[in-house]
Amino acid sequence: MDTLPSKILENVVNELSKLPGIGKRTALRFALHLLKQPIKETETLAAALTSLVTEIKYCSRCHCISDSEICPTCSNPKRNNTIVCVVENIQDVMAIENTGQFNGLYHVLGGVISPIDGIGINDLNIVNLIERVERENIKEVILALPTTMEGDTTNFYLNKQLQKYDITISTIARGIAIGDNLEYADEITLGRSILNRVPFDNVFKR
Amino acid sequence: MDTLPSKILENVVNELSKLPGIGKRTALRFALHLLKQPIKETETLAAALTSLVTEIKYCSRCHCISDSEICPTCSNPKRNNTIVCVVENIQDVMAIENTGQFNGLYHVLGGVISPIDGIGINDLNIVNLIERVERENIKEVILALPTTMEGDTTNFYLNKQLQKYDITISTIARGIAIGDNLEYADEITLGRSILNRVPFDNVFKR
Repeated sequence: MDTLPSKILENVVNELSKLPGIGKRTALRFALHLLKQPIKETETLAAALTSLVTEIKYCSRCHCISDSEICPTCSNPKRNNTIVCVVENIQDVMAIENTGQFNGLYHVLGGVISPIDGIGINDLNIVNLIERVERENIKEVILALPTTMEGDTTNFYLNKQLQKYDITISTIARGIAIGDNLEYADEITLGRSILNRVPFDNVFKR
Repeated sequence: MDTLPSKILENVVNELSKLPGIGKRTALRFALHLLKQPIKETETLAAALTSLVTEIKYCSRCHCISDSEICPTCSNPKRNNTIVCVVENIQDVMAIENTGQFNGLYHVLGGVISPIDGIGINDLNIVNLIERVERENIKEVILALPTTMEGDTTNFYLNKQLQKYDITISTIARGIAIGDNLEYADEITLGRSILNRVPFDNVFKR
């Protein structure tokens, strides 16, 4: 990285390059871009960033980001409140919402169990999930966690904790993505897509 | 773009996506990343951004970003103050400084003449350049502007304005980049590299 002609510039480049995927060069481009804009623009950005971290709220039920105590999904009477889909983070909630295929509620864990990163059971919204299963009229919990070692560890732990309740525990289907060629699929996915094959009519009669 | 579950989040995503090359999806990733960090981190970033636009200063001589009234390059007695290299912006200054091949001073125009973007002569540091040529002991002005239509327009304008002074006006060499194959070079560059060929000894005896 070039030596910068100003400490103020250097400072903002250092701060911006902490953003994920942003190197010093891109950070410099951001800083010089902001310098060409009216001062007001950058002040608005700075204020938005501050209010993000100081004012953001999480739904007390599903732990999704929300402007109110209970998020619009949780408070929507049209949603099926007997099914809860457990996800790692709010991006996953948005991805599932985008499909338009799920009408139940969510539960955002805020991560997965990862001893190597120091993330244990108490760092995640696991106790609250169990409380929800105890208190609410939940009939099915769908585990939609990532297929990583950490995701699987979390899946197994949750499955064990939820066994004693009279609910269905399911997990999202893993298989060959629509449009993908079988020959390029990895062996585990292809193997699982055969083991977990579904009756033809189940898919095409919907 | 997915509908976001919070106005505060939406606001910060909108602001971040004004940065060059940043779409809504990356902006969301930044916002969610910041939410996982300690609040202090984001507050430091916001403060750095604000101080960037409110406290940044420009060298009154070369118009490069500087923490002092006169930048370290302009105030360095070891630099050759008879040669001034005219560039579009401070990235160009940093790029030339990185080569270690230039020991003169700079003059940052802050852009190039571009009627289509509403950038005229008075929006650039052109008058100050002519004042410098009049007042300072400048013997050579190197025009190192981009080879775009706007860059060339600016080159021609500056050349015309500087004609009446007893100085050498030069422009940086354009040619085939070191390591590039001739067969893949564009015709204009290759043609110019032949027209502006240099005596072999000039290059290899330095």
